[in-house]
Amino acid sequence: MKRNPGPGFSITVRIKCAHNFDGVAAASREVAEGGGLVDWALPAGGAPTARAADLSVFCRDLDHQAEILERLRRADGIEVVNVDDDTYAVHRGGKLRVAGAGHLEDANDLSRQYTPGVARICRSVARDRERSFLLTQRRNMVAVISDGSAILGLGNLGPEAALPVMEGKALLFKEFGGVDAFPIVLATQDTDEIVRTAELIAPSFGGINLEDIAAPRCFEVEERLQSRVDIPVFHDDQHGTAIVALAALRNACAVVGKRFDELRLVLMGVGAAGTACAKLFLAAGVGEIIGVNRSGVLYDGKPGLTPAQQAFAAMTNPGKRRGGISDVIAGADVFIGLSGPDTVSERDVRRMARDAIVFAMSNPDPEIGPELALPHVAVMATGRSDYPNQVNNVLAFPGVFRGALDAGASRITQGMNLAASEAIAAIAVQDGLTREYIIPRATDRRVAPAVAEAVAGAAGRDGVARRRPPIPGIGALADA
Amino acid sequence: MKRNPGPGFSITVRIKCAHNFDGVAAASREVAEGGGLVDWALPAGGAPTARAADLSVFCRDLDHQAEILERLRRADGIEVVNVDDDTYAVHRGGKLRVAGAGHLEDANDLSRQYTPGVARICRSVARDRERSFLLTQRRNMVAVISDGSAILGLGNLGPEAALPVMEGKALLFKEFGGVDAFPIVLATQDTDEIVRTAELIAPSFGGINLEDIAAPRCFEVEERLQSRVDIPVFHDDQHGTAIVALAALRNACAVVGKRFDELRLVLMGVGAAGTACAKLFLAAGVGEIIGVNRSGVLYDGKPGLTPAQQAFAAMTNPGKRRGGISDVIAGADVFIGLSGPDTVSERDVRRMARDAIVFAMSNPDPEIGPELALPHVAVMATGRSDYPNQVNNVLAFPGVFRGALDAGASRITQGMNLAASEAIAAIAVQDGLTREYIIPRATDRRVAPAVAEAVAGAAGRDGVARRRPPIPGIGALADA
Repeated sequence: MKRNPGPGFSITVRIKCAHNFDGVAAASREVAEGGGLVDWALPAGGAPTARAADLSVFCRDLDHQAEILERLRRADGIEVVNVDDDTYAVHRGGKLRVAGAGHLEDANDLSRQYTPGVARICRSVARDRERSFLLTQRRNMVAVISDGSAILGLGNLGPEAALPVMEGKALLFKEFGGVDAFPIVLATQDTDEIVRTAELIAPSFGGINLEDIAAPRCFEVEERLQSRVDIPVFHDDQHGTAIVALAALRNACAVVGKRFDELRLVLMGVGAAGTACAKLFLAAGVGEIIGVNRSGVLYDGKPGLTPAQQAFAAMTNPGKRRGGISDVIAGADVFIGLSGPDTVSERDVRRMARDAIVFAMSNPDPEIGPELALPHVAVMATGRSDYPNQVNNVLAFPGVFRGALDAGASRITQGMNLAASEAIAAIAVQDGLTREYIIPRATDRRVAPAVAEAVAGAAGRDGVARRRPPIPGIGALADA
Repeated sequence: MKRNPGPGFSITVRIKCAHNFDGVAAASREVAEGGGLVDWALPAGGAPTARAADLSVFCRDLDHQAEILERLRRADGIEVVNVDDDTYAVHRGGKLRVAGAGHLEDANDLSRQYTPGVARICRSVARDRERSFLLTQRRNMVAVISDGSAILGLGNLGPEAALPVMEGKALLFKEFGGVDAFPIVLATQDTDEIVRTAELIAPSFGGINLEDIAAPRCFEVEERLQSRVDIPVFHDDQHGTAIVALAALRNACAVVGKRFDELRLVLMGVGAAGTACAKLFLAAGVGEIIGVNRSGVLYDGKPGLTPAQQAFAAMTNPGKRRGGISDVIAGADVFIGLSGPDTVSERDVRRMARDAIVFAMSNPDPEIGPELALPHVAVMATGRSDYPNQVNNVLAFPGVFRGALDAGASRITQGMNLAASEAIAAIAVQDGLTREYIIPRATDRRVAPAVAEAVAGAAGRDGVARRRPPIPGIGALADA
């Protein structure tokens, strides 16, 4: 697909000119003729008659940036004096800041928040460790932990290169869930070391969000870590994706009038996300799931499977069907893609059952483009923001942790995942479902609070919510 | 010492009354008669005629809180409806928040700070790891790491109980040095595991401040960790204390006209801080240091010394003197106390040399009270804020890390510590030294920037400053 000019490759250009209005007009003409888009233009000095102006220009890619810049440099009446890449600009110096939650204005504040007053709080927590969930950052702080082994769609780039993603994730935690989140990237990709390190730093946090850890290592890391700590552990690439995909699937089925227990679902890509989707879909009552990866259809006992793949095969494909995607997609009600670009053909999609549902979630390029698939399917979803029905994890993780922290959950159960999924689906239902609106938009502010409430409720029902210790204060309890 | 009423034990009491002025007046009388102090009083509803008011009351301790409260409950014309302990109040929910450094207002911001734009930054950092110091939180983020084994003067209370102190430390880093700092407390007190865990999480940070780790483990942790990571490691209990104590010592000597190389100095307490003080004092040219701990005077070859104590003994006490504090303090120019309360007597201090200098830094109760020592000494310093000449680490660590981060230092050298110390001393010199002003106040905003500049300069001279990679941006460098 040809990229459109967009914010990911925007540049801010400062021009000098005799008069600001004329200069901006001239520059805008050049940008338009070069196929770029002026996002905004402002007089550089703040006054409309200034002799300098800044323009932010959407470009398609690096070459396009250079092309537009060259046009501006050659244009009459303006002089390019400075240029900056907007994406690099927002990352310079890092994207997160740590700040105090309260006032620290005078010596009295200081003597309560630090020595000598803090000693009372230390003693109080030492007497009952559970109070750390009330009197320290654990109340609202989640670690976002990655080994950098499966960064976005980029692969294994190591811990330093994972940090910009984890910082972005922390921003979303705060923005949508009010959750304080802090990135921890690890200089190891050894399962034992990842688990042990996360366990050892766990007393600093109220929850752990695992991120961008490659399959199958991620399964073992999550399971072993959760068995060793008393705070919730959640691998977002698995469960976040599964929660949101299930919400979308629930509503897609409502739109086309299909029942979960009668669904035949083909799932392409059996990594972290695919495996979690299969488990959650089955827990939600989906009738039949058949998994496909590069080696073809997975079935119980297939030679050469890894333990994780064999576990997947054992719980899916009850008919032990074999072959490739084309052998199993005929007559399928649902196609779920969590693999890579262009892995399913228009011909395959055309052979699906009536009112087919296709979620092509590979990012940035889906398993099949909506332009190709849409004529043959009833409902289509992707991972992209520039098409309807975007399946985006941000609908899940901020609310899931908000709810888990509020409930003092010791872990995150499948019941909590299901509840999160239902809460997301319900918001779109309430708005009125259509084929192009089966799931709330990623920026919908109603979602996280609804998810949080549902998750906290499920934590209580599943018996993993903890009663918080009484608040130490005046009287018998103070300094107890 | 009898405690004065103070903010560390203050309570906020809400009273109901017929009229706010009369109610506050009545309550204030009760507080005064009970020996408390009203810090502030405000009408609860915001209006001066409201029928409720909040009073914040300084108390001496828990019993005193209860006593004052009982008086208020019995007083005519007012009803106590609520009470809260102010120290607990500021700790509830934790003291830190993680926030975004930039704007995150629309989809364009999001697509630069998170997917898809962030992928460009990931690739850029993957190509040159050093760019993580420019394009991620490493630029300004320090880990405050503790195993909870030596919390303040409270001892070994474990990681959860250490967290309130580490959060307070992070507040001070930000407040005085503009450094983002994040607490990591560890569920282990094993040296190997502490070192390995800190090493594995190091790619998330630009520096590591070790805190409240017991001696002698702290020495090995610092040394081994620094040899494995390329970011500065600084054990504040050691070097922060040494830097500030040296600054005070320098100016105390200036006040009384004594030369460093002629000093005879007795150091009581040979733990983390004492050892670092001895090393830094010797590096600064102090003539003779004799260390004393619970077992008496330390000398080279003394039986029963730990390896750390033996190393200390080998670099001090050149005359191999033996005995106890009383045997070596006679004729000493300086007494440095880093031990515990009341470990030196008035009789000992009286036997020191003319114009004696006494730093009794044990907290909260010094080795000898100023009331006892002052008649016999020329200059006295303590760790307390309620006497002149407070030796407080906050004068050092924010500026040390500010300077180290700004210089891209790979470690912190003794030269940087000395430079920090000189910068602190210089500010008091500039103000004009007196016996009661040998060191800036802990809240002096001039100190951290001056320390930072001195430290960054010394990093350059000592060859540990790194040239940062060029800023990736437009043109050849973008996405390189």
